[in-house]
Amino acid sequence: MKVSIIGSGNVATHIAKALHQAGIEITAIWSYTPKNAVQLALQIKGVKAVKNIAEMASIKSDFLIISVKDDAIEEVAEQLITYDGIVAHTSGSVSIEALGSLKNYGVFYPLQTFSKHKEVNFKSIPLCLEAKEKTTLQALTTLALLLSEKVHEVNSEKRRILHLSSVFACNFPNYMYSIAQNILQQHELDFDLIKPLINETAQKVQTALPAEVQTGPAVRNDQKTMAKHEELLKLMASQWLEIYRLLSGHIKNNK
Amino acid sequence: MKVSIIGSGNVATHIAKALHQAGIEITAIWSYTPKNAVQLALQIKGVKAVKNIAEMASIKSDFLIISVKDDAIEEVAEQLITYDGIVAHTSGSVSIEALGSLKNYGVFYPLQTFSKHKEVNFKSIPLCLEAKEKTTLQALTTLALLLSEKVHEVNSEKRRILHLSSVFACNFPNYMYSIAQNILQQHELDFDLIKPLINETAQKVQTALPAEVQTGPAVRNDQKTMAKHEELLKLMASQWLEIYRLLSGHIKNNK
Repeated sequence: MKVSIIGSGNVATHIAKALHQAGIEITAIWSYTPKNAVQLALQIKGVKAVKNIAEMASIKSDFLIISVKDDAIEEVAEQLITYDGIVAHTSGSVSIEALGSLKNYGVFYPLQTFSKHKEVNFKSIPLCLEAKEKTTLQALTTLALLLSEKVHEVNSEKRRILHLSSVFACNFPNYMYSIAQNILQQHELDFDLIKPLINETAQKVQTALPAEVQTGPAVRNDQKTMAKHEELLKLMASQWLEIYRLLSGHIKNNK
Repeated sequence: MKVSIIGSGNVATHIAKALHQAGIEITAIWSYTPKNAVQLALQIKGVKAVKNIAEMASIKSDFLIISVKDDAIEEVAEQLITYDGIVAHTSGSVSIEALGSLKNYGVFYPLQTFSKHKEVNFKSIPLCLEAKEKTTLQALTTLALLLSEKVHEVNSEKRRILHLSSVFACNFPNYMYSIAQNILQQHELDFDLIKPLINETAQKVQTALPAEVQTGPAVRNDQKTMAKHEELLKLMASQWLEIYRLLSGHIKNNK
Protein backbone atom coordinates (compact mmCIF):
# COMPACT_ATOMS: atom_id res chain seq x y z
CA MET A 1 0.00 0.00 0.00
CA LYS A 2 1.20 3.48 -0.88
CA VAL A 3 0.18 6.80 0.63
CA SER A 4 0.98 10.38 -0.36
CA ILE A 5 0.62 13.26 2.06
CA ILE A 6 -0.40 16.89 1.66
CA GLY A 7 0.56 19.01 4.65
CA SER A 8 3.45 19.15 7.12
CA GLY A 9 1.84 20.24 10.37
CA ASN A 10 1.41 18.23 13.56
CA VAL A 11 -1.31 15.92 12.24
CA ALA A 12 0.40 15.33 8.86
CA THR A 13 3.73 14.63 10.56
CA HIS A 14 2.32 12.14 13.07
CA ILE A 15 0.19 10.31 10.51
CA ALA A 16 3.06 10.09 7.99
CA LYS A 17 5.44 8.70 10.62
CA ALA A 18 2.87 6.26 12.00
CA LEU A 19 2.03 4.96 8.51
CA HIS A 20 5.72 4.55 7.73
CA GLN A 21 6.27 2.65 10.98
CA ALA A 22 3.34 0.41 10.07
CA GLY A 23 5.23 -0.61 6.95
CA ILE A 24 3.36 1.54 4.46
CA GLU A 25 5.30 3.28 1.72
CA ILE A 26 4.98 7.07 1.80
CA THR A 27 5.53 8.14 -1.77
CA ALA A 28 5.44 11.95 -1.75
CA ILE A 29 4.78 14.97 0.43
CA TRP A 30 3.68 18.44 -0.58
CA SER A 31 3.20 21.38 1.80
CA TYR A 32 2.31 25.08 1.56
CA THR A 33 5.65 25.53 3.31
CA PRO A 34 8.14 23.71 1.00
CA LYS A 35 10.86 23.83 3.68
CA ASN A 36 8.66 21.81 6.08
CA ALA A 37 7.85 19.25 3.39
CA VAL A 38 11.56 18.75 2.77
CA GLN A 39 12.20 18.42 6.49
CA LEU A 40 9.46 15.84 6.93
CA ALA A 41 10.64 13.94 3.84
CA LEU A 42 14.13 13.75 5.35
CA GLN A 43 12.70 11.98 8.40
CA ILE A 44 10.95 9.26 6.41
CA LYS A 45 12.90 6.89 4.19
CA GLY A 46 12.16 7.00 0.47
CA VAL A 47 9.81 9.98 0.47
CA LYS A 48 9.97 12.68 -2.16
CA ALA A 49 9.16 16.28 -1.26
CA VAL A 50 7.17 17.60 -4.22
CA LYS A 51 7.43 21.25 -5.23
CA ASN A 52 4.25 21.68 -7.22
CA ILE A 53 0.92 20.50 -5.84
CA ALA A 54 -0.25 19.63 -9.37
CA GLU A 55 2.37 16.84 -9.40
CA MET A 56 0.63 15.15 -6.49
CA ALA A 57 -2.34 14.25 -8.69
CA SER A 58 -0.19 12.17 -11.04
CA ILE A 59 1.87 10.38 -8.39
CA LYS A 60 0.92 6.71 -8.09
CA SER A 61 -0.47 5.90 -4.66
CA ASP A 62 -3.51 4.24 -3.14
CA PHE A 63 -4.35 7.07 -0.76
CA LEU A 64 -3.69 10.77 -0.64
CA ILE A 65 -4.14 12.25 2.80
CA ILE A 66 -4.86 15.99 3.05
CA SER A 67 -3.87 17.39 6.40
CA VAL A 68 -3.90 21.17 5.98
CA LYS A 69 -5.79 24.04 7.64
CA ASP A 70 -9.57 23.56 7.49
CA ASP A 71 -10.07 26.54 5.20
CA ALA A 72 -7.57 25.25 2.65
CA ILE A 73 -8.99 21.74 2.19
CA GLU A 74 -11.45 22.57 -0.60
CA GLU A 75 -8.90 24.61 -2.52
CA VAL A 76 -6.32 21.82 -2.27
CA ALA A 77 -8.87 19.20 -3.36
CA GLU A 78 -9.71 21.14 -6.52
CA GLN A 79 -6.13 20.68 -7.70
CA LEU A 80 -6.33 16.91 -7.35
CA ILE A 81 -9.29 16.09 -9.60
CA THR A 82 -7.24 13.84 -11.88
CA TYR A 83 -5.88 11.75 -8.96
CA ASP A 84 -6.85 8.09 -9.23
CA GLY A 85 -6.65 6.88 -5.61
CA ILE A 86 -8.70 7.73 -2.54
CA VAL A 87 -8.33 11.25 -1.15
CA ALA A 88 -9.11 11.74 2.53
CA HIS A 89 -8.92 14.80 4.75
CA THR A 90 -8.18 14.60 8.48
CA SER A 91 -10.28 17.45 9.84
CA GLY A 92 -12.78 17.17 12.66
CA SER A 93 -14.98 20.00 11.53
CA VAL A 94 -14.91 20.03 7.73
CA SER A 95 -17.70 18.16 5.91
CA ILE A 96 -16.90 15.33 3.53
CA GLU A 97 -18.49 17.53 0.83
CA ALA A 98 -15.36 19.70 0.76
CA LEU A 99 -13.86 16.87 -1.31
CA GLY A 100 -16.93 16.59 -3.56
CA SER A 101 -14.99 17.58 -6.70
CA LEU A 102 -12.93 14.36 -6.50
CA LYS A 103 -13.53 10.88 -7.91
CA ASN A 104 -13.02 8.90 -4.74
CA TYR A 105 -12.90 10.51 -1.33
CA GLY A 106 -13.47 10.21 2.37
CA VAL A 107 -12.46 11.37 5.85
CA PHE A 108 -9.72 10.00 8.08
CA TYR A 109 -10.03 11.90 11.38
CA PRO A 110 -7.74 10.95 14.27
CA LEU A 111 -9.36 12.05 17.53
CA GLN A 112 -6.23 13.16 19.33
CA THR A 113 -4.12 16.23 20.08
CA PHE A 114 -0.71 16.20 18.43
CA SER A 115 2.40 18.17 19.33
CA LYS A 116 5.42 18.23 17.10
CA HIS A 117 7.91 16.89 19.62
CA LYS A 118 5.77 14.43 21.53
CA GLU A 119 5.41 10.84 20.34
CA VAL A 120 1.92 9.33 20.56
CA ASN A 121 0.79 5.74 20.56
CA PHE A 122 -1.50 5.48 17.54
CA LYS A 123 -2.88 2.09 18.63
CA SER A 124 -5.26 3.69 21.11
CA ILE A 125 -6.26 6.71 19.03
CA PRO A 126 -9.84 6.54 17.73
CA LEU A 127 -9.82 6.93 13.93
CA CYS A 128 -13.14 8.26 12.65
CA LEU A 129 -13.79 7.35 9.04
CA GLU A 130 -16.39 8.51 6.55
CA ALA A 131 -16.98 7.73 2.89
CA LYS A 132 -19.90 7.79 0.45
CA GLU A 133 -18.94 4.55 -1.34
CA LYS A 134 -18.86 1.27 0.57
CA THR A 135 -15.64 0.19 -1.17
CA THR A 136 -13.95 3.47 -0.21
CA LEU A 137 -14.97 2.98 3.41
CA GLN A 138 -13.58 -0.56 3.29
CA ALA A 139 -10.27 0.66 1.87
CA LEU A 140 -9.99 3.43 4.48
CA THR A 141 -10.83 0.88 7.19
CA THR A 142 -8.04 -1.42 6.01
CA LEU A 143 -5.59 1.49 6.15
CA ALA A 144 -6.86 2.67 9.56
CA LEU A 145 -6.61 -0.78 11.13
CA LEU A 146 -2.90 -0.80 10.35
CA LEU A 147 -2.53 2.15 12.72
CA SER A 148 -5.16 1.79 15.41
CA GLU A 149 -7.35 -0.73 17.19
CA LYS A 150 -10.13 1.82 17.42
CA VAL A 151 -11.67 2.44 14.03
CA HIS A 152 -15.16 3.95 13.80
CA GLU A 153 -17.50 5.03 11.03
CA VAL A 154 -18.68 8.56 11.89
CA ASN A 155 -20.67 10.83 9.59
CA SER A 156 -19.87 14.55 9.11
CA GLU A 157 -22.55 15.72 11.53
CA LYS A 158 -21.43 13.46 14.36
CA ARG A 159 -17.78 14.21 13.61
CA ARG A 160 -18.53 17.90 14.11
CA ILE A 161 -20.03 17.05 17.53
CA LEU A 162 -16.95 15.01 18.41
CA HIS A 163 -14.75 17.93 17.43
CA LEU A 164 -16.78 20.35 19.53
CA SER A 165 -16.65 18.03 22.53
CA SER A 166 -12.89 17.70 22.10
CA VAL A 167 -12.56 21.45 22.64
CA PHE A 168 -14.09 20.88 26.08
CA ALA A 169 -12.08 17.69 26.67
CA CYS A 170 -8.72 19.03 25.55
CA ASN A 171 -8.34 22.70 24.57
CA PHE A 172 -10.17 24.15 27.57
CA PRO A 173 -8.60 21.84 30.18
CA ASN A 174 -5.19 22.74 28.75
CA TYR A 175 -6.05 26.43 29.12
CA MET A 176 -7.06 25.74 32.73
CA TYR A 177 -3.67 24.10 33.26
CA SER A 178 -1.98 27.21 31.86
CA ILE A 179 -3.82 29.42 34.35
CA ALA A 180 -2.78 27.09 37.19
CA GLN A 181 0.81 27.21 35.96
CA ASN A 182 0.68 31.00 35.79
CA ILE A 183 -0.73 31.32 39.31
CA LEU A 184 2.02 29.07 40.67
CA GLN A 185 4.75 30.89 38.76
CA GLN A 186 3.55 34.28 40.03
CA HIS A 187 3.96 32.94 43.55
CA GLU A 188 7.27 31.16 42.99
CA LEU A 189 5.74 27.72 43.32
CA ASP A 190 6.81 24.84 41.10
CA PHE A 191 4.34 23.65 38.43
CA ASP A 192 5.64 20.12 39.15
CA LEU A 193 3.66 20.19 42.40
CA ILE A 194 0.32 19.92 40.62
CA LYS A 195 1.32 17.57 37.79
CA PRO A 196 0.24 14.41 39.67
CA LEU A 197 -3.12 16.10 40.30
CA ILE A 198 -3.56 16.88 36.59
CA ASN A 199 -2.79 13.27 35.74
CA GLU A 200 -5.08 11.76 38.34
CA THR A 201 -7.96 14.05 37.26
CA ALA A 202 -7.69 12.70 33.70
CA GLN A 203 -7.21 9.13 34.96
CA LYS A 204 -10.34 9.25 37.09
CA VAL A 205 -12.72 9.82 34.19
CA GLN A 206 -11.33 6.83 32.30
CA THR A 207 -13.51 4.68 34.55
CA ALA A 208 -16.07 7.08 36.06
CA LEU A 209 -18.45 9.72 34.75
CA PRO A 210 -16.95 13.20 35.26
CA ALA A 211 -20.08 14.51 36.99
CA GLU A 212 -19.81 11.72 39.56
CA VAL A 213 -16.22 12.51 40.53
CA GLN A 214 -16.48 16.31 40.59
CA THR A 215 -14.58 17.64 43.61
CA GLY A 216 -13.64 21.10 44.89
CA PRO A 217 -15.23 24.00 46.75
CA ALA A 218 -17.89 24.74 44.12
CA VAL A 219 -19.54 21.31 44.15
CA ARG A 220 -19.44 21.33 47.98
CA ASN A 221 -20.83 24.88 47.88
CA ASP A 222 -18.01 25.86 50.25
CA GLN A 223 -18.71 29.61 50.21
CA LYS A 224 -15.88 30.51 52.59
CA THR A 225 -13.17 28.91 50.45
CA MET A 226 -14.61 30.34 47.23
CA ALA A 227 -14.65 33.82 48.77
CA LYS A 228 -10.99 33.40 49.76
CA HIS A 229 -10.10 32.24 46.24
CA GLU A 230 -11.89 35.20 44.69
CA GLU A 231 -9.98 37.58 46.96
CA LEU A 232 -6.68 36.05 45.83
CA LEU A 233 -7.70 36.20 42.17
CA LYS A 234 -8.64 39.88 42.47
CA LEU A 235 -4.97 40.55 43.16
CA MET A 236 -3.88 38.59 40.08
CA ALA A 237 -5.92 38.92 36.87
CA SER A 238 -9.51 39.97 36.27
CA GLN A 239 -10.06 37.38 33.53
CA TRP A 240 -9.14 34.54 35.91
CA LEU A 241 -11.65 35.87 38.44
CA GLU A 242 -14.31 35.99 35.72
CA ILE A 243 -13.60 32.38 34.73
CA TYR A 244 -13.54 31.26 38.37
CA ARG A 245 -16.94 32.82 39.05
CA LEU A 246 -18.59 31.55 35.88
CA LEU A 247 -17.37 27.95 36.22
CA SER A 248 -17.91 27.75 40.00
CA GLY A 249 -21.45 29.07 39.53
CA HIS A 250 -22.27 26.41 36.95
CA ILE A 251 -20.68 23.57 38.94
CA LYS A 252 -22.69 24.63 42.01
CA ASN A 253 -25.96 24.87 40.09
CA ASN A 254 -25.49 21.63 38.14
CA LYS A 255 -25.06 19.58 41.26
CA MET B 1 4.47 4.99 65.22
CA LYS B 2 0.77 5.35 66.01
CA VAL B 3 -1.77 7.60 64.31
CA SER B 4 -5.39 8.39 65.16
CA ILE B 5 -7.78 9.80 62.61
CA ILE B 6 -10.68 12.25 62.80
CA GLY B 7 -12.91 12.13 59.74
CA SER B 8 -14.16 9.44 57.37
CA GLY B 9 -14.39 11.22 54.02
CA ASN B 10 -12.27 10.63 50.90
CA VAL B 11 -9.08 12.20 52.27
CA ALA B 12 -9.36 10.56 55.71
CA THR B 13 -10.05 7.16 54.14
CA HIS B 14 -7.14 7.30 51.70
CA ILE B 15 -4.67 8.60 54.29
CA ALA B 16 -5.73 6.01 56.88
CA LYS B 17 -5.38 3.15 54.41
CA ALA B 18 -2.05 4.41 53.06
CA LEU B 19 -0.62 4.79 56.58
CA HIS B 20 -1.81 1.31 57.49
CA GLN B 21 -0.22 -0.12 54.33
CA ALA B 22 3.01 1.65 55.26
CA GLY B 23 3.04 -0.35 58.49
CA ILE B 24 1.80 2.36 60.83
CA GLU B 25 -0.67 1.45 63.53
CA ILE B 26 -3.97 3.29 63.24
CA THR B 27 -5.28 3.40 66.80
CA ALA B 28 -8.71 5.06 66.60
CA ILE B 29 -11.12 6.79 64.27
CA TRP B 30 -13.86 9.28 65.10
CA SER B 31 -16.24 10.83 62.58
CA TYR B 32 -19.25 13.18 62.62
CA THR B 33 -21.01 10.25 60.93
CA PRO B 34 -20.44 7.34 63.38
CA LYS B 35 -21.60 4.79 60.78
CA ASN B 36 -18.79 5.84 58.42
CA ALA B 37 -16.19 5.65 61.19
CA VAL B 38 -17.30 2.08 61.96
CA GLN B 39 -17.14 1.20 58.26
CA LEU B 40 -13.65 2.61 57.87
CA ALA B 41 -12.49 0.90 61.07
CA LEU B 42 -13.73 -2.45 59.70
CA GLN B 43 -11.46 -2.01 56.68
CA ILE B 44 -8.30 -1.44 58.72
CA LYS B 45 -7.04 -4.10 61.11
CA GLY B 46 -6.92 -3.21 64.81
CA VAL B 47 -8.66 0.15 64.59
CA LYS B 48 -11.27 1.24 67.09
CA ALA B 49 -14.18 3.44 66.02
CA VAL B 50 -14.65 5.91 68.87
CA LYS B 51 -18.13 7.24 69.70
CA ASN B 52 -17.24 10.38 71.59
CA ILE B 53 -14.75 12.88 70.18
CA ALA B 54 -13.57 13.73 73.70
CA GLU B 55 -12.13 10.19 73.93
CA MET B 56 -9.78 10.96 71.04
CA ALA B 57 -7.78 13.38 73.20
CA SER B 58 -6.86 10.65 75.71
CA ILE B 59 -6.01 7.92 73.20
CA LYS B 60 -2.28 7.25 73.04
CA SER B 61 -0.84 8.05 69.62
CA ASP B 62 1.98 10.07 68.08
CA PHE B 63 -0.18 11.88 65.56
CA LEU B 64 -3.81 12.82 65.28
CA ILE B 65 -4.87 13.70 61.76
CA ILE B 66 -7.95 15.87 61.33
CA SER B 67 -9.54 15.41 57.95
CA VAL B 68 -12.97 17.02 58.20
CA LYS B 69 -14.74 19.86 56.36
CA ASP B 70 -12.74 23.09 56.44
CA ASP B 71 -15.32 24.89 58.57
CA ALA B 72 -15.26 22.19 61.24
CA ILE B 73 -11.48 22.04 61.82
CA GLU B 74 -11.30 24.74 64.48
CA GLU B 75 -14.28 23.36 66.38
CA VAL B 76 -12.81 19.84 66.34
CA ALA B 77 -9.41 21.12 67.48
CA GLU B 78 -10.92 22.82 70.52
CA GLN B 79 -12.02 19.43 71.80
CA LEU B 80 -8.51 18.04 71.65
CA ILE B 81 -6.59 20.48 73.84
CA THR B 82 -5.49 17.79 76.28
CA TYR B 83 -4.05 15.58 73.48
CA ASP B 84 -0.32 14.95 73.89
CA GLY B 85 0.82 14.13 70.36
CA ILE B 86 0.99 16.20 67.20
CA VAL B 87 -2.32 17.26 65.65
CA ALA B 88 -2.34 18.00 61.91
CA HIS B 89 -5.14 19.00 59.56
CA THR B 90 -5.15 18.07 55.88
CA SER B 91 -6.82 21.12 54.33
CA GLY B 92 -5.42 23.15 51.46
CA SER B 93 -7.12 26.38 52.39
CA VAL B 94 -7.29 26.49 56.21
CA SER B 95 -4.50 28.31 58.01
CA ILE B 96 -2.33 26.54 60.56
CA GLU B 97 -3.76 29.01 63.09
CA ALA B 98 -7.04 27.07 63.15
CA LEU B 99 -5.15 24.61 65.40
CA GLY B 100 -3.68 27.39 67.56
CA SER B 101 -5.47 26.18 70.69
CA LEU B 102 -3.42 22.97 70.73
CA LYS B 103 -0.04 22.12 72.27
CA ASN B 104 1.64 20.73 69.20
CA TYR B 105 0.22 21.11 65.73
CA GLY B 106 0.86 21.33 62.02
CA VAL B 107 -0.50 20.76 58.53
CA PHE B 108 -0.34 17.58 56.44
CA TYR B 109 -1.83 18.52 53.05
CA PRO B 110 -1.83 15.91 50.27
CA LEU B 111 -2.06 17.69 46.92
CA GLN B 112 -4.31 15.22 45.16
CA THR B 113 -7.97 14.54 44.33
CA PHE B 114 -9.41 11.51 46.09
CA SER B 115 -12.47 9.47 45.19
CA LYS B 116 -13.87 6.84 47.47
CA HIS B 117 -13.59 3.89 45.10
CA LYS B 118 -10.41 4.74 43.24
CA GLU B 119 -7.02 3.64 44.56
CA VAL B 120 -4.21 6.17 44.32
CA ASN B 121 -0.47 5.71 44.46
CA PHE B 122 0.64 7.82 47.43
CA LYS B 123 4.34 7.60 46.46
CA SER B 124 3.93 10.34 43.84
CA ILE B 125 1.54 12.60 45.74
CA PRO B 126 3.15 15.83 46.96
CA LEU B 127 2.67 16.14 50.72
CA CYS B 128 2.80 19.77 51.87
CA LEU B 129 3.79 20.16 55.50
CA GLU B 130 3.74 23.11 57.84
CA ALA B 131 4.60 23.50 61.54
CA LYS B 132 5.68 26.28 63.88
CA GLU B 133 8.15 24.15 65.83
CA LYS B 134 11.14 22.61 64.09
CA THR B 135 10.75 19.33 65.98
CA THR B 136 7.10 19.11 64.91
CA LEU B 137 8.08 19.66 61.30
CA GLN B 138 10.70 16.94 61.61
CA ALA B 139 8.18 14.50 63.07
CA LEU B 140 5.64 15.27 60.33
CA THR B 141 8.38 14.85 57.71
CA THR B 142 9.28 11.42 59.08
CA LEU B 143 5.62 10.40 58.86
CA ALA B 144 5.18 11.90 55.38
CA LEU B 145 8.26 10.16 53.97
CA LEU B 146 6.70 6.81 54.86
CA LEU B 147 3.94 7.59 52.38
CA SER B 148 5.46 9.72 49.64
CA GLU B 149 8.72 10.57 47.90
CA LYS B 150 7.55 14.16 47.46
CA VAL B 151 7.53 15.96 50.80
CA HIS B 152 7.59 19.77 50.85
CA GLU B 153 7.49 22.46 53.49
CA VAL B 154 4.81 24.96 52.44
CA ASN B 155 3.48 27.80 54.57
CA SER B 156 -0.23 28.66 54.93
CA GLU B 157 -0.11 31.47 52.38
CA LYS B 158 1.57 29.38 49.66
CA ARG B 159 -0.64 26.41 50.48
CA ARG B 160 -3.67 28.60 49.78
CA ILE B 161 -2.17 29.46 46.36
CA LEU B 162 -1.56 25.77 45.68
CA HIS B 163 -5.14 25.03 46.59
CA LEU B 164 -6.45 27.78 44.31
CA SER B 165 -4.30 26.57 41.43
CA SER B 166 -5.56 23.03 41.99
CA VAL B 167 -9.10 24.27 41.29
CA PHE B 168 -7.85 25.26 37.83
CA ALA B 169 -5.77 22.09 37.44
CA CYS B 170 -8.41 19.63 38.61
CA ASN B 171 -11.93 20.85 39.41
CA PHE B 172 -12.41 23.00 36.30
CA PRO B 173 -10.90 20.49 33.83
CA ASN B 174 -13.18 17.83 35.33
CA TYR B 175 -16.15 20.13 34.77
CA MET B 176 -15.02 20.60 31.15
CA TYR B 177 -14.92 16.80 30.81
CA SER B 178 -18.47 16.62 32.13
CA ILE B 179 -19.66 19.10 29.48
CA ALA B 180 -17.89 17.07 26.78
CA GLN B 181 -19.51 13.90 28.11
CA ASN B 182 -22.91 15.60 28.11
CA ILE B 183 -22.53 16.86 24.54
CA LEU B 184 -21.58 13.37 23.36
CA GLN B 185 -24.42 11.73 25.26
CA GLN B 186 -26.97 14.16 23.81
CA HIS B 187 -25.83 13.07 20.36
CA GLU B 188 -25.61 9.35 21.11
CA LEU B 189 -21.84 9.29 20.87
CA ASP B 190 -19.72 7.23 23.26
CA PHE B 191 -17.68 9.10 25.91
CA ASP B 192 -14.98 6.42 25.39
CA LEU B 193 -14.13 8.10 22.07
CA ILE B 194 -12.54 11.10 23.78
CA LYS B 195 -10.92 9.35 26.73
CA PRO B 196 -7.54 8.94 24.96
CA LEU B 197 -7.66 12.67 24.16
CA ILE B 198 -8.30 13.55 27.82
CA ASN B 199 -5.36 11.38 28.86
CA GLU B 200 -2.96 12.74 26.26
CA THR B 201 -3.86 16.35 27.15
CA ALA B 202 -2.86 15.70 30.77
CA GLN B 203 0.23 13.73 29.69
CA LYS B 204 1.49 16.54 27.46
CA VAL B 205 1.88 19.07 30.28
CA GLN B 206 3.95 16.64 32.34
CA THR B 207 6.89 17.64 30.13
CA ALA B 208 5.81 20.90 28.43
CA LEU B 209 4.36 24.21 29.55
CA PRO B 210 0.59 24.25 28.92
CA ALA B 211 0.73 27.57 27.05
CA GLU B 212 3.25 26.04 24.63
CA VAL B 213 1.06 23.07 23.73
CA GLN B 214 -2.29 24.88 23.47
CA THR B 215 -4.20 23.56 20.46
CA GLY B 216 -7.70 24.09 19.05
CA PRO B 217 -9.62 26.66 17.00
CA ALA B 218 -9.25 29.51 19.52
CA VAL B 219 -5.45 29.57 19.60
CA ARG B 220 -5.40 29.33 15.77
CA ASN B 221 -8.05 32.06 15.66
CA ASP B 222 -10.05 29.80 13.35
CA GLN B 223 -13.19 31.97 13.20
CA LYS B 224 -15.12 29.66 10.88
CA THR B 225 -14.84 26.64 13.16
CA MET B 226 -15.62 28.70 16.26
CA ALA B 227 -18.73 30.11 14.56
CA LYS B 228 -19.86 26.56 13.71
CA HIS B 229 -19.26 25.44 17.30
CA GLU B 230 -21.25 28.37 18.66
CA GLU B 231 -24.14 27.51 16.34
CA LEU B 232 -24.16 23.94 17.63
CA LEU B 233 -23.97 25.07 21.26
CA LYS B 234 -26.91 27.44 20.77
CA LEU B 235 -29.03 24.35 20.14
CA MET B 236 -27.78 22.70 23.35
CA ALA B 237 -27.34 24.84 26.48
CA SER B 238 -26.82 28.56 26.93
CA GLN B 239 -24.29 28.11 29.76
CA TRP B 240 -22.04 25.97 27.54
CA LEU B 241 -22.14 28.69 24.88
CA GLU B 242 -21.23 31.29 27.50
CA ILE B 243 -18.26 29.20 28.68
CA TYR B 244 -17.15 28.52 25.09
CA ARG B 245 -17.15 32.23 24.24
CA LEU B 246 -15.39 33.33 27.41
CA LEU B 247 -12.60 30.74 27.27
CA SER B 248 -12.08 30.97 23.50
CA GLY B 249 -11.84 34.75 23.79
CA HIS B 250 -9.15 34.50 26.48
CA ILE B 251 -7.18 31.79 24.66
CA LYS B 252 -7.22 33.93 21.51
CA ASN B 253 -6.11 37.08 23.30
CA ASN B 254 -3.42 35.42 25.39
CA LYS B 255 -1.67 34.02 22.37
